[in-house]
Formats: sequence, structure tokens, C-alpha cells
Amino acid sequence: MSAPLLGGPPRVVSLGLDLFARTLESLDVPVVHLAWAPPAGGDPRLAALLERLEARAEAIERANTEALGRLTGGEPFVVDCRPAWEALELPERTVLHSGPPITWERMCEPVRAAVLCAIRYEEWAANDDAARALVERGAVKLEPCHHWRAVGPMAGILTRSMPVFVVENRAHGNKAYVTINEGLGKVLRYGANDESVVARLRWLATEAGPLLGAALRRSGGIDLRSLMAQALRMGDEMHQRNLAASALFVRALLPHAAHVADRHHALARLGEFLSGHDQFFLNLAMAAGKAMADPAAGVADSTLVTTLARNGTDFGIRVSGLGDRWFTAPVEMPVGLYLPGFGPEDANPDMGDSAIVETIGLGGGAMAASPAVARFLGAGGVHEAMAATAEIREICVGEHPIFRIPALDERGVPVGIDVRRVVETGVTPIINTGIASKKAGVGQVGAGVVRAPLGCFTAALEALAG
Amino acid sequence: MSAPLLGGPPRVVSLGLDLFARTLESLDVPVVHLAWAPPAGGDPRLAALLERLEARAEAIERANTEALGRLTGGEPFVVDCRPAWEALELPERTVLHSGPPITWERMCEPVRAAVLCAIRYEEWAANDDAARALVERGAVKLEPCHHWRAVGPMAGILTRSMPVFVVENRAHGNKAYVTINEGLGKVLRYGANDESVVARLRWLATEAGPLLGAALRRSGGIDLRSLMAQALRMGDEMHQRNLAASALFVRALLPHAAHVADRHHALARLGEFLSGHDQFFLNLAMAAGKAMADPAAGVADSTLVTTLARNGTDFGIRVSGLGDRWFTAPVEMPVGLYLPGFGPEDANPDMGDSAIVETIGLGGGAMAASPAVARFLGAGGVHEAMAATAEIREICVGEHPIFRIPALDERGVPVGIDVRRVVETGVTPIINTGIASKKAGVGQVGAGVVRAPLGCFTAALEALAG
Repeated sequence: MSAPLLGGPPRVVSLGLDLFARTLESLDVPVVHLAWAPPAGGDPRLAALLERLEARAEAIERANTEALGRLTGGEPFVVDCRPAWEALELPERTVLHSGPPITWERMCEPVRAAVLCAIRYEEWAANDDAARALVERGAVKLEPCHHWRAVGPMAGILTRSMPVFVVENRAHGNKAYVTINEGLGKVLRYGANDESVVARLRWLATEAGPLLGAALRRSGGIDLRSLMAQALRMGDEMHQRNLAASALFVRALLPHAAHVADRHHALARLGEFLSGHDQFFLNLAMAAGKAMADPAAGVADSTLVTTLARNGTDFGIRVSGLGDRWFTAPVEMPVGLYLPGFGPEDANPDMGDSAIVETIGLGGGAMAASPAVARFLGAGGVHEAMAATAEIREICVGEHPIFRIPALDERGVPVGIDVRRVVETGVTPIINTGIASKKAGVGQVGAGVVRAPLGCFTAALEALAG
Repeated sequence: MSAPLLGGPPRVVSLGLDLFARTLESLDVPVVHLAWAPPAGGDPRLAALLERLEARAEAIERANTEALGRLTGGEPFVVDCRPAWEALELPERTVLHSGPPITWERMCEPVRAAVLCAIRYEEWAANDDAARALVERGAVKLEPCHHWRAVGPMAGILTRSMPVFVVENRAHGNKAYVTINEGLGKVLRYGANDESVVARLRWLATEAGPLLGAALRRSGGIDLRSLMAQALRMGDEMHQRNLAASALFVRALLPHAAHVADRHHALARLGEFLSGHDQFFLNLAMAAGKAMADPAAGVADSTLVTTLARNGTDFGIRVSGLGDRWFTAPVEMPVGLYLPGFGPEDANPDMGDSAIVETIGLGGGAMAASPAVARFLGAGGVHEAMAATAEIREICVGEHPIFRIPALDERGVPVGIDVRRVVETGVTPIINTGIASKKAGVGQVGAGVVRAPLGCFTAALEALAG
């Protein structure tokens, strides 16, 4: 005997436009909605590559489950702050920069300005001309932060006497490193390069860094994953907005800093710096991201993205199953809001390793946690913030077990960007970002949102299918 | 010629159940939904009183506009922390308590225990029996905090050697005072009374208070309204949850505290206390509330509530147009979540001046900012949090110009509770609260939500109409 047709409540599958589905949902009728579009925008070559991977789907799913587990299972603790020559054994005459590898010739102006300023700061050259000569004749090496287990925001410049936070992933034993965030405006990472920039770098190296290091060593390590989960519940998406995380970090640090500070004016100066610095935590979120993402690299067959990074010229991604290879495409131009006196015509294209934050499920994909940040999307509010997170969910294989959003009734942020899904849907990661002046010496001109270029993902897909 | 019936899109007024209205809204059809019920629950006496006030509606609206402007226009700054004998000129042998005036005989057990403990702490008596004898023969006076421009959480005990924060309303010139929050668990305000409670009070008076005071004096005052507006955007409703505000306050205080701390171990101890104390800011929010609410009192004809306060026995309200008179009714029992080992049978009825926070638009009425707090409502989440704020909007005359909620696309919290609307709708203020043990000496047993009893509002309505 067959089941009667109307023996239960109706179950609906809706296809295409979502109006009908939304109406049914409002009436509590269970509905599955499929927004259908041709895969890979109808490109037959890409469709064929996806088809080829389909044959290995089972191995890929297994690998992605493993990689996702590593990506979301990290336990980053910030344990120290020490000079890069100690922490990283970074040698003389080496300048680390953000993004994939790039030659001096192809570097954009603000990154060049920051490289030269760092050479002056290290006193390897007395002025920009002498510094440029060193670089041009190969006497100063340029390498990506990512090749040194480090990450750098914007220009991402890191040299040996700069102090770095040491972040330890206690689940996997690896470490990651990042500089101390300098604050906003005229700062090295945005390509500013005058004496005020160098003076701040010296204060960070001689007073703030050692004090932070002593406090962190006394703390036994501050649990960044827990702090970040808390901050995500407080409106930070941890890229454009780090206010909660910064304040929580200061609160956690205070007893240790006070204990080790033998000169109370040094602590007062650090306190002054921290009390006005809403983005202080960004660098710690980045190092936590790097520490969490690195163990997810190198899982054979995995199609998950383990690095998103930009150097102001190229956008580069790395994919778990493809090891250390970079897949690059030209960076896009961010859209956003500008500081008074600046506009889109002043903007440099996208730069920085800060997109490591998007790699672990925060930033653009966590916008639902942070409606205030959605205004960088234009006339953004709650709806746009929710839509951004929903869109990123389309290209991710999982939801974060720890990073959850109260406004979504504790649902986890989407995490584990799958190269296949990006190419299939044409949806590329949304990255929240600062905007640097395209000219040397100016600094930050705004903040906004940018997309990762599709070209990185199609290139990676070819390698995966090849 | 009359307009054609279908000359424009349909406009719908929906009455009663809201299913039809919600469906239309999902289709973007403009709809006005009226949830209709008979006013004042159909009580003819109350309906007649409301009717009588209707005749003076114009004068009342004018007065309420004035009172609302004062209530929302305050600019509270915390400027100092000093002993109550200095700040308030609080005399010997006076114990301030929360809520409306109450005699020793009618006080509940945890408040009694706290009164006796404070007498021991002040060394007016060596033990509880001697302390009780002093109170019973009138040698120690009991007065409400509210009569001394102060507010106290839970039992609300305040005596002369305790340090108080001094909050200055720079828009109106008035001041308000509150003790330093002791932390959670076994603390005086929840009726705990052992040596650990007294030792903490001594540390607050001799080390933490003077250090906080020196730091605040050096700061020139910390802007609490701005900090609270920021914290509301970070998931605090500032009654049950003060994590963001507490962390922001620590961050703002740090440079000044570090500057004035000549003994760095004292700052380390204060830092230790602050770093684990997520509700530290509650008392500052209360004093800010008191400083903002006091200028709204005494506007002739205004029907707005200027005080909500409970002493564990009576709930008392004060109304702008009725000056200093208290209108009381028996307190309700909170419902909520309990600490391990405790349950509803251990709970004391509602207590504390902390409902001043609800008086200025935060706490229960701001729950939409804080879905995490909605779990105290039972199986609460985003929907319940939104519903709580929407319900309080029914009884308020305005929206706060500064305290806004990102999840509501920056709409202000409802503020200005109108006695008429409360009686008309039967909706009474929702108050987020801690729960004390009903036994002396135990302390906190849980946290939850409670309603203000309708009886206070009907009593006030009679006075307004009389």
C-alpha cells in the first residue's frame, strides 16, 4: 500500500527567486530553497575542471574534514613579545613584507616607502636614496612574512629589531609572529615614513615591547581563541573592528603589566597608547590566525584555502593540498569610506596579510557579528551584514565551533573556504581592510571592503585538477 | 470625482493576532498592526482615572517632553572615588540601604545580614548581636540611598568609611554616588557577612578606592554616557551584562592609574581584581543613571517614572510630577538561572537600586542589544531579546538619542516610562537582576529577570489623577 499523498504536512522545494520561499518560511512551512545559477558562470573549461575533481570527491571530502579540523581546532596563546632577531632569528639586511613574493620593481609606492623607511630605522642606510641603492643591488633581501611564520598588516614590514608578539598554537605546537600595531594614520604599514614613524618604532622596540613581553611571560600566556570568541560576541569581526578584543586584552594584561612595570611612567605611556588604540588587537588576531591556519596546510587532496594575502600588487592564495605554492592574480581596489580630505582617487589597491583573519572565518565573513562595520559596504546595516555572512557561507565547508554569533542565535561563522565552491559560485571572499594612500609617505586614507580576485582560485583549481 | 479604489498599492491595517501582518510584511506590503486589548485590563476604576488624565493630556505631554529631555540629556562623568563621609558627608551610625524606606522589622534576611555586617565593619559594634541591639533601639539609623543622592546594588548598604564613585552630571550640575562593586558570590550586597566580606571592604577602602580616586582625579573625568553608548553596541545591556563597559573602563583608566600608582603592587592587585570582574561597571552605570534621572524629577504634570527601586520587601517608584513621594507594592520573585547547588527555593524576592538602569532605558528594555542575556528569560535568544525591547517600547514615550542598538539598525532604546501607559497596557517594566539567597550569610545564588509590580503604577496613577 502506498503512502497517501496528503498524509503529512506539505514539504516544499523552491527554486530560483526566493520570494515564495520566504513567504512559506513566515508561515512556518518547512522549505528548502535553491538559488540556482549555472556553475562557474557557464565557463565550459572551469566546469570541466570541477567535473574532473568530482571523480575524487570522496578523497577531497575526507581531506577537507581533516584540514577543517586543524583550522578550527587551534588553541592560540600569546606568550611573549621579543625582538624579531631573537624570536624569528631574522638576519641583518632582510625586510619582510606582506602578501606573496614580489620584486622591488613591481612593488607599489607605499610598500616601497615602508621598505626604505625600515632600512633607515635599522640604520642600514642613512637616507632613502642609499636605502634604495641597497635594495636595487640586492644587498637587502625582500621576503614575504608568510615564509617566516609571520604576518604583517598592510605593507607588512618586519625587520630584525622590531618586537614581535609570539603566538603559540598549543593544540599543534607551532608558533606565529606579528609586529605590534602602531596605531592609525601616519604609520609605517600604510607607507608613511617620516621621523614620527621612526620615533614610534623606536619607542615600541625600547619600551613598549619589552614591557609587553615581560607582562606576557608573567601571564603564562593569554588565551586568544577564547578572547576572540568573546569579542566576536561584542561586535568585533576582528578585522575592521577590534575594539572589544583590544579592551579585553588590556584588561587581561593589566595585572601582569602592573606587576612587572618597575618604572610606572613606562606603563603610563603604554596605557596611554593602548587606551586610544581601538585596532591594537588586529595584529594579535592576525598572529592567532596564522598560528591556526598553518597546521591546516599540506593535507593532500584538500581544496581548502590556508592563506589569503596581498602585497598591494598581487593577491595570493595558498591551498592545503597544494602546499607552499602561491596562486596569484592582480589585487582589486577596495571600496569604502575615506578620511577627511581623501577619496577613491588617493587609494592604493588592496594590501596586507591581514586577510589571514578571513582565512579563519572572521573579518568579512563574520560581518553578521558586526553590523557597525557593514556601513563600509555603502548604505549598510543589519541586513547587509547578515547578507555578507550568508554569502560567505556559500563557499565554506563548515561552521566554526568556537567563533559564534549571538545575532544568529549562536550559529558559528562560516569557515573553510573551498576553492571548488568559489569557482563554482563565482563568489570570492569578502575582505574588510584599511586603505593606504597610493603615494609614499602619506599613510592611511580610509577603510573599506574588497574582494579576493577570482583568478587566484581558478589558477588553484587548475593545479588541483591537473 | 472620487479616487479609484485600486488607484494605488494596498495599504492594510491588521487587528488582533499578528500572523496576517507578518505575512504581508514579508511581501513588502505596508501594514500597520494593532494588537488590541481593553485598556487597563478592563478595570473600570483605572479606566476612569486614565480618562480623567486625558482631560489634562496637553499639559502632561508638554511636561513629559521636558522630563524626557532632562532624562536623556544628562552628561555623566565619573570624576572621583572618595570615602562616603567626605563625598556625601554621611554621618556616624547611619546605614543606607536600597529601595524605598523600610523599617528594620520589615527588612528581609539578606538585607538585615548586610546591615549588621556593615555595623561590624564600621566597628560600631563588635558582633551581630550588639549590632542588632543598636539598630533595634534606634542608635543606628536606616535610610534609603536614594535620599542621599546615592544608589546601591542589591542590599545597597553604604556606610561612611566605604569609598564611593562620584559621578557628575555636567549638563545639570548634580552629582550621584555609588559604592565600588565588590565582585560576585559571597559579597555584602547579597547578604554575605563573613570575614572575607569585611576584608574585601577594607581593601576597597584602604587601597583600591584611593588608587581609583587618584586616577580619576588625574583623568579629569571619564565620560560615562559615551562609554555606555559604546558598550551598548558591544552586547551589554548594562544590568545583567557589563563586560564591554568594564573592559572599556579599565582601558580608559589604565594610563591614569599607572601614572599615579607609586606602589606598583597596589596597581597589580587592583588590576587582578578588575581583570576578573565582568560586572565591575554595573555600579558606575547605576550612578550614571541616578545622575541622569535626578534632574528629571519634579516636573509638574509629568507622568514619567524617575525612580525604580526595591529593598527586598517593597518595590518603590517615584514619578516626576509627584516629586519625592514613593509608591510601593510588594516585590516580585525573579525567575532565572541559578548557581550550582541553588534553586528557586533559595531565592530572596527582588532587591536593589540597580533598576535605576531600567529607569534610563537600559537593562531589561535594552535586551535587544544583548541576546546573550535573553537566556535568563528561559529558552531565550535573539527573538526573545527583540520582543522584550519591543514590549518596553509600548510603555515608553521616547527613544534614546544616544543609547542605540546596532541590531535594530541604530534605533534608540525605549526610554521614559509613562505611568499611564503602564496601567493602560498592563505591561510593567522588565528588570534584569541578580538573585540573593533568602538566608543571611549565603550571598548570590543566581541571576534572572523580574517585573515591577503593577500596584506601584496604579497607586501613582491615583495620585496623578487625584
